[in-house]
Amino acid sequence: MKDLTIDNITENVHFINAQCSDRRLKFILERLVSHAHDLVRETRLSTEEWMEAIQFLTQVGQTCTETRQEFILLSDILGISLLVDAIDHPKPPGASEGTVLGPFHTHEAQNIEHGGGIASDPEGEPLLVLCTVRDSAGKALENVTIDVWETDSKGFYDVQYANHDGPDGRAILTSDKDGIFWFKAIVPVPYPIPSDGPVGKLLAKLGRHCYRPSHMHFMFNHPIYDPLITALYLKNDPYETSDAVFGVKNTLVVELGRVEDEAIASKYGVKVGSALMTYDFVLVTKEEALNLRYKNAAAAMKAQGKKMDYLNGLPVPEVD
Amino acid sequence: MKDLTIDNITENVHFINAQCSDRRLKFILERLVSHAHDLVRETRLSTEEWMEAIQFLTQVGQTCTETRQEFILLSDILGISLLVDAIDHPKPPGASEGTVLGPFHTHEAQNIEHGGGIASDPEGEPLLVLCTVRDSAGKALENVTIDVWETDSKGFYDVQYANHDGPDGRAILTSDKDGIFWFKAIVPVPYPIPSDGPVGKLLAKLGRHCYRPSHMHFMFNHPIYDPLITALYLKNDPYETSDAVFGVKNTLVVELGRVEDEAIASKYGVKVGSALMTYDFVLVTKEEALNLRYKNAAAAMKAQGKKMDYLNGLPVPEVD
Repeated sequence: MKDLTIDNITENVHFINAQCSDRRLKFILERLVSHAHDLVRETRLSTEEWMEAIQFLTQVGQTCTETRQEFILLSDILGISLLVDAIDHPKPPGASEGTVLGPFHTHEAQNIEHGGGIASDPEGEPLLVLCTVRDSAGKALENVTIDVWETDSKGFYDVQYANHDGPDGRAILTSDKDGIFWFKAIVPVPYPIPSDGPVGKLLAKLGRHCYRPSHMHFMFNHPIYDPLITALYLKNDPYETSDAVFGVKNTLVVELGRVEDEAIASKYGVKVGSALMTYDFVLVTKEEALNLRYKNAAAAMKAQGKKMDYLNGLPVPEVD
Repeated sequence: MKDLTIDNITENVHFINAQCSDRRLKFILERLVSHAHDLVRETRLSTEEWMEAIQFLTQVGQTCTETRQEFILLSDILGISLLVDAIDHPKPPGASEGTVLGPFHTHEAQNIEHGGGIASDPEGEPLLVLCTVRDSAGKALENVTIDVWETDSKGFYDVQYANHDGPDGRAILTSDKDGIFWFKAIVPVPYPIPSDGPVGKLLAKLGRHCYRPSHMHFMFNHPIYDPLITALYLKNDPYETSDAVFGVKNTLVVELGRVEDEAIASKYGVKVGSALMTYDFVLVTKEEALNLRYKNAAAAMKAQGKKMDYLNGLPVPEVD
């Protein structure tokens, strides 16, 4: 542990970290240190650059507040959030796909009844959202908890306002016995992710725009089913193919309809001609997701030539 | 840029970042994203683990103050700081080696004359520090600026005290025409790096102690010579071979002497029997360091099979 050089330091850091009794943490740290050191070696990172990176990370941390998570934003714009979700919540064919949570989910949303309104903004275009949630065999799922959230018509979430004093543009619903849930909202608009912080400045340096295409967030929870964090994106949005946080998937792009029928308009308490978003979500069971996660992990480890044990479905190197 | 999967997302993030006009930033980001994504794929990182990591990084950022840099501490305990320094300040044979800066260098230190005292702590054991600074041909170097800093006898730097109101245990000297600089200090003691923050908690989880062996920091600056950030470590310290931040090198370990001679004691204004630290530092020119850095970088790139251009001595991929 003396005379550490460019070439031997990595093994030495592994050696001292190998005392860790948590096998999973030890494995993650071993991979983290290897990749961090390789990054430095491959780029021949200079002290000045590293100090700039340290300052950047410090600013990211210090930009975080109770209602703003700049590290999640950083993770989002580097595609890490999407990747982690894809690994952690694998979907078999037919199941609804997941996408990035984003930094604006909160725990302030109130439960509302079907048909309730989630958005107070009078300038937003009224939208009726009419969805179902089913299992992969097509069975309606009752009592699924659904968090929904969106920005106002200016592209800001409630918590982004300095004078924010309660939830707006968000609510929690529970699916009924037919797997239906419905609510009134406003037509989503494209918006910039917060660009006044260090992550926004990084995007500018990279020559990237900071826009997300119009979307509505949905999060599904149920004791038996794997949590689904997803969003629906509006077709033909100008940012449909260049989302700053890599969230768009073809199966999550929807074309808004119109409430054409007087009876329907009356049933749901909206005007004829109102914008309409419909979607049939399909959840997989926790067991099915766990099995698929394990199967994918085992295949990936095999492809890397690694023999692994699994703790709670997560790989750790075999003990010698 | 739609339907991103575990396998294609990395290329897509590279594609969107490729708009960056700063070739060096583009290269670093390309490597960063590749390594971050590989880390996630290789460990099959879960959403819960990633959220824990996000919380950890946020806490690291929020622990930073004007006088505490928790991200540097994190970089130190993962061996990254030492690695970056080794790459950025390569030393030819015969030159003094560098080591970690640590998070406690400040810009508060005052200039003192040779023989001045840097530490006010009456409980510290008095130490006479008597050094020279030369070039690699042995020529004495005049007018080199030398920052020195150390903890008090309890193992704390001045800025770690809540009631801190000025520099203590630190000073700036300038070498004389014989390359000599000398000052009065106290014998360094081992001390724990700050362990009350997230980095300390990580060390505990890893089963690692948080001690650094006894040492005195030195930083050399001169218009012609490559900055040398280093430290001298006391021989036979209990943590000599297990420094929490990987800073010890054999050539930087010194055995303290004693001022035996009455004439010497009188000349330097210390008591006979006082502890004595001596060292002859050797600097290399900026030009020599730049050439060596470039040579090492070129060899490393060649070993990786990469053809590169160099901007300010730092590699970037060749333009197609």
